[in-house]
This record gives sequence, C-alpha cells and structure tokens, in this order.
Amino acid sequence: MSTTTQAPQPPGAPKTARGARTRAKILKAAEDTFGTLGYHRAGVTDITRAAGVAQGTFYTYFTSKEEILRELVMDLGHKLRAHLAAQVIGTHDRLGAEEQGLKAFLQYLSDHPSLYRVLQEAQFVDQAIYQEYYETFARGYTDMLNTATRKGEIRPGNNQHRAWALMGLSHFLALKYALWDQRASEGEHAFDPIVETMSDFLRNGLALNGRDKP
Amino acid sequence: MSTTTQAPQPPGAPKTARGARTRAKILKAAEDTFGTLGYHRAGVTDITRAAGVAQGTFYTYFTSKEEILRELVMDLGHKLRAHLAAQVIGTHDRLGAEEQGLKAFLQYLSDHPSLYRVLQEAQFVDQAIYQEYYETFARGYTDMLNTATRKGEIRPGNNQHRAWALMGLSHFLALKYALWDQRASEGEHAFDPIVETMSDFLRNGLALNGRDKP
Repeated sequence: MSTTTQAPQPPGAPKTARGARTRAKILKAAEDTFGTLGYHRAGVTDITRAAGVAQGTFYTYFTSKEEILRELVMDLGHKLRAHLAAQVIGTHDRLGAEEQGLKAFLQYLSDHPSLYRVLQEAQFVDQAIYQEYYETFARGYTDMLNTATRKGEIRPGNNQHRAWALMGLSHFLALKYALWDQRASEGEHAFDPIVETMSDFLRNGLALNGRDKP
Repeated sequence: MSTTTQAPQPPGAPKTARGARTRAKILKAAEDTFGTLGYHRAGVTDITRAAGVAQGTFYTYFTSKEEILRELVMDLGHKLRAHLAAQVIGTHDRLGAEEQGLKAFLQYLSDHPSLYRVLQEAQFVDQAIYQEYYETFARGYTDMLNTATRKGEIRPGNNQHRAWALMGLSHFLALKYALWDQRASEGEHAFDPIVETMSDFLRNGLALNGRDKP
C-alpha cells in the first residue's frame, strides 16, 4: 500500500486490492438483496450474510443502508453505460447505434432485473440520486445526438427533448418485454421484432410517406 | 335510495349520493397524503384528518391503507384516460391526437404531481395493480393505433410495441419537464417546444430525408 497517492480518498474507499474486492462483493450482495427483498424489508444483516462478511466489515466501507443504495445506483449506472457503449462499437451511424443500443439494453435488463427495482425504489429513498442517474444519462445521450446532427446523420431538432423521449421509449419497452413478459425475453433473438419495429419508427416516424401511400 | 338495483355492489360501495361524496373525499385525501408524505409514512389517521372525517368512516369504505392505494391507482387511471380522451376530441387524425394528447398529459402531470408518486410507489406495494394500470393503458393505445393503421393515417407496423414506446416517451418527458424542471412547466404554452420536437419526431423519425439532406 502506497501512502504517496495525491488524490484525497473518500471515507470508506478501499486502500488495497483486497479491500476493493470486498467492497465490490458487498455492493453485489446489496444489489441482490434489495432486488429480491426490496429496500425497506432488507437489512444490513441480510446484505452481509449474502456477501459472506461480518457485519462490522459493512461499516468499514459504508455508513448506512441508505448510503449503500446511493453507491449502488451510481455503480449500476456506470456499468450500464459502459456496457451499452461497448455494445454499439462498430455501428456505422447514430441510427445503427440506437438499434444496437436498444437491443443491448433490453437484454441487460432481462439479465439484471434487480437494476430496475433498485433504481425505482431509490427515488423514494433519495430523490436526488434518482434524478441524477437519469440526468447523467440524458446529458451523454444529448451529446451523442448533437454529434450525430453535426455529422448529418440525423435530422436537426431539439436533442435534449429527444434524449428524454428515447430514454423513456427504451425504459417502457424493457418494463413490458424484458421484465414483465418473461416469455418475450427467451432466446438469443427474442428482442429482434421489437428492435425492428423501433428501427422503422426511429428512421421513418409514424406518418405514411410517399413509398407506403396506397 | 333505491333497493331495486340489480347489479351486485362491491363491499364498501357507497349506497347513497352522500356516501359517494364521502368516499370521493377520502380518495382525494389519500391522493394528497400519499403524494406529500409518501405511502410508507402516511397513516390512515393522516388520510382521515385530511378528509375531515372520523377514522371509523374510512373503514366504512375501505378495508386498509393498501386497499385505498389500489382503488386510487384505478381511479387515477380512469380520470387520466377520460381527461386525455376529452382533450383530443376534434383532432383530425392519429398524429394530431398524439400531439394534443402529449400536451394534455404534460399539463395534467404538472397539475397533479401526486398521481406520479402514488403510481410509482404502488409498484412496491402491489406489483399487479401497477402492471394492470399500464397494461390497460397499452391495450387502449394499441387499439387506437390499429384503427389509425386501418384508416391509412399511420404507417403499418407492430402497434403494441409502438404503444409501449409512446407511453414511455410521454412518461419520461413528463418526468423531466413537468415534474423536475418546475420552470419548464410555467405558462400556458410552456410545453409547446416539446410537443413541436415530438411532432417532428413522430411524423418524420430521426433519419434525414430528401428534403433535409444538404
């Protein structure tokens, strides 16, 4: 362990690789525990039992159940954004990235249903952290749409409005088809029909154009 | 009061006009109380105090705090759908109705912020009622889009997927601009720029078309 690090460490930040692993293990256990029991029913004891650590160890890294929820929301947000960014590498333009991103998002929520529950419960524990989760997402999304507008990949328009609309679109499709309709999410190509519908919607809107007019 | 009514009354259903008014008053008080205190902190006493009725009166109409939340979610859903249906009367086609409906939805959420909170909390009290709220909404929405497809007002496509996407789009725009950004919701025409962005999005999608290509 080096003591020459210049950046101030937040309290509870692990100082060793082993500490970082233990902290990550507690975070994962909190995700699972909140996901199954719900935030209000879950206790710190449930989290430490799931993580296989002593209760005192919890308090080495976190001050309270509320604080670990906050950390978890930020951690899940980072992971989801990193996952989506990795999945859209290699797409040719913004609309291609939208399609690939939607598919990856539906699959991710289907594989990590507790992300949804933790995030939705967080809004009643700490409204600011919930809002910040979506504001952070929206800022990045707006930037990507602005870049696409500059490159001439999409129509000019208010990209902040569009970013929130697109986030909502993905969120509700995930709610319905990745979380509620379990059958709809089975198989490698389960979400292809949804992505296909949305691809047409994002490219052409809903109005009839010359090509389709009877 | 007539005793010749054939339809069986659910338990707690008011038998007189006065009873119906009292029940409605308790429902409104529950909406306000859950909206400000949150479901978990609010007690039946807080609701009866806000309604100006004795605690026993609550139990004439509802069996528990959980039951009144369920009733409230269904009641709020009916009212919102009736409001939106009334607001889109006179629009010429589905896309006009979408624009008018989005504007009315944003204004409604801005005027009734407790609807959002009650609904979001309900998912952790009774997942089935939350799901039913959105499934009911989606069924009606899908039917309207199917009618519009038959009439040749919109492009053919999977209207169930589209209904969920459009619900999500409205939900997130309301979250951001009607609930979180208080300033964005001030004035009669506050939501016009958002409706304008979405009108272009719904009509034309995001892809550049011939007209806009440089």
